[in-house]
Amino acid sequence: MASPARGFSVLGGRLSRLPAQGGSAVLSGVPVAARRVFRGFRSSGVRHDAIVISGTEMAKQIQKEIQRGVESWISLGNRRPYLSIILVGDDPASHTYVRKKIRAASAVDHVDERAVCNGIAPEKDVDGFHIINIGRLCLDQHSLIPATASAVWEIIKRTGIETFGKNVVVAGRSKNVGMPIAMLLHTDGEHERPGGDATVTIAHRYTPKEQLKIHTQLADVIIVAAGIPKLITSDMVKEGAAVIDVGINYVHDPVTGKTKLVGDVDFEAVKKKASFITPVPGGVGPMTVAMLLKNTLLAAKKLIY
Amino acid sequence: MASPARGFSVLGGRLSRLPAQGGSAVLSGVPVAARRVFRGFRSSGVRHDAIVISGTEMAKQIQKEIQRGVESWISLGNRRPYLSIILVGDDPASHTYVRKKIRAASAVDHVDERAVCNGIAPEKDVDGFHIINIGRLCLDQHSLIPATASAVWEIIKRTGIETFGKNVVVAGRSKNVGMPIAMLLHTDGEHERPGGDATVTIAHRYTPKEQLKIHTQLADVIIVAAGIPKLITSDMVKEGAAVIDVGINYVHDPVTGKTKLVGDVDFEAVKKKASFITPVPGGVGPMTVAMLLKNTLLAAKKLIY
Repeated sequence: MASPARGFSVLGGRLSRLPAQGGSAVLSGVPVAARRVFRGFRSSGVRHDAIVISGTEMAKQIQKEIQRGVESWISLGNRRPYLSIILVGDDPASHTYVRKKIRAASAVDHVDERAVCNGIAPEKDVDGFHIINIGRLCLDQHSLIPATASAVWEIIKRTGIETFGKNVVVAGRSKNVGMPIAMLLHTDGEHERPGGDATVTIAHRYTPKEQLKIHTQLADVIIVAAGIPKLITSDMVKEGAAVIDVGINYVHDPVTGKTKLVGDVDFEAVKKKASFITPVPGGVGPMTVAMLLKNTLLAAKKLIY
Repeated sequence: MASPARGFSVLGGRLSRLPAQGGSAVLSGVPVAARRVFRGFRSSGVRHDAIVISGTEMAKQIQKEIQRGVESWISLGNRRPYLSIILVGDDPASHTYVRKKIRAASAVDHVDERAVCNGIAPEKDVDGFHIINIGRLCLDQHSLIPATASAVWEIIKRTGIETFGKNVVVAGRSKNVGMPIAMLLHTDGEHERPGGDATVTIAHRYTPKEQLKIHTQLADVIIVAAGIPKLITSDMVKEGAAVIDVGINYVHDPVTGKTKLVGDVDFEAVKKKASFITPVPGGVGPMTVAMLLKNTLLAAKKLIY
């Protein structure tokens, strides 16, 4: 059920490269000031495709930062941070996350997921699923934040996408993705753990499709974590909005006859209208792995608890 | 700092009556089916004012239910439930809540509010502010729910206001009111602690006023907990929307020259457009006291923990 303890370099070395996005600029780790350049570029009146945010490239940068953090931590005589993985059940997305290597674990008898999450010491809970970490997150206190939510936050902040007073739609209300993303983005920028100060709309499976469209058309930022291919189409997106795609869907490709990984956004059409967009694969996925490693370092250094 | 332990009847007996609302029907504790009658009534094409929901009357009903619960609990040989109050700081709204009697407590040196909340055993935390109760609330598990959020939920459900797939705006993001209301209303109706399955927009001080109006005009239910008199005006409300006013504001009345209590809604104008509306005073306030007592009974009977 549990894999052996592992260092950073093992998972880190396995990150796959983002396939080239023909014709679109690729942005990663660009500081806030750079966004003004892109805006000027747009103001020429010529219609350009969205800037495709490379999660893969951004994740590499973060992993370099973490690697430096680990080395300086060890150089002070501390133990190397390590990460243990416990897998419950057989959710395909979880499998993607911890790689096929752990598939054998799905054979174990079912155990209560919440009991497992709460059974881990909160200060070692790098997934951020322990009730104390969820509670602290929801109270705007420092905590270990679920890695996918943290990845979305980091993509937004490092790209310089504005959230203060902006309209954000989060499509999806799962406890490890949609809920914490909505929590990070609507909360106060001056609290202990700063939030995004955005007006946040939480949509989900029972939001009528035509109402979802009304909300997304108002949104400056759309974050979609619904698990529905092409849920977000170009007619639903306001000109110049930022679109962050958290979807992980395996679909049959009629051209190649093979299964391929897609997100929840109609990427090719939406990128013609959005200002920023994340691809799948190569967007939120690699950033999630990077943020898990960042949590591991935070936990090892006892910076939260 | 702490008041003596007290029984239900003491606080209960102090509830003030709702002033008569001239010309409007007063609804309290009407079962869901009754709403259809009101709808038919409306379909005649004649414009009628909103049904004014009497929190005072609904709270009395709930207190009777609690009283019966207490009596049957005691009759089984159990100890009478009791409520202790700890007050930190000098917030006027808190004072209203626990009555002027405890004003003397404001003289104590400042202590950390979060530490006090977490210092109470979660199973006795009838305010629902302990991190474990917040965490469980946000994970859709049974918990002691902050009384104001619980009051809003109960008003909506007992009045028969629909939330499934509806647009809800929550104006205000405080951790004891706005946040838990948004949490209750957007979450899954089939989880351990059922949610409202609504599409929820969380607005706050940094939501531009014109954006707030766009969102409230789309809303089937507006819940306002911002502390700003007349924040919600009639032009912001969709015909037939339900409006729940959580505001507590003391304003100078130029007519009488005295201070009076008002909510966040322009009541007289909005009631002409809404289907349901809660007054201030006599709406959410008395229901909050009732739900605090309900939490006390739940805690005494150990029904949550």
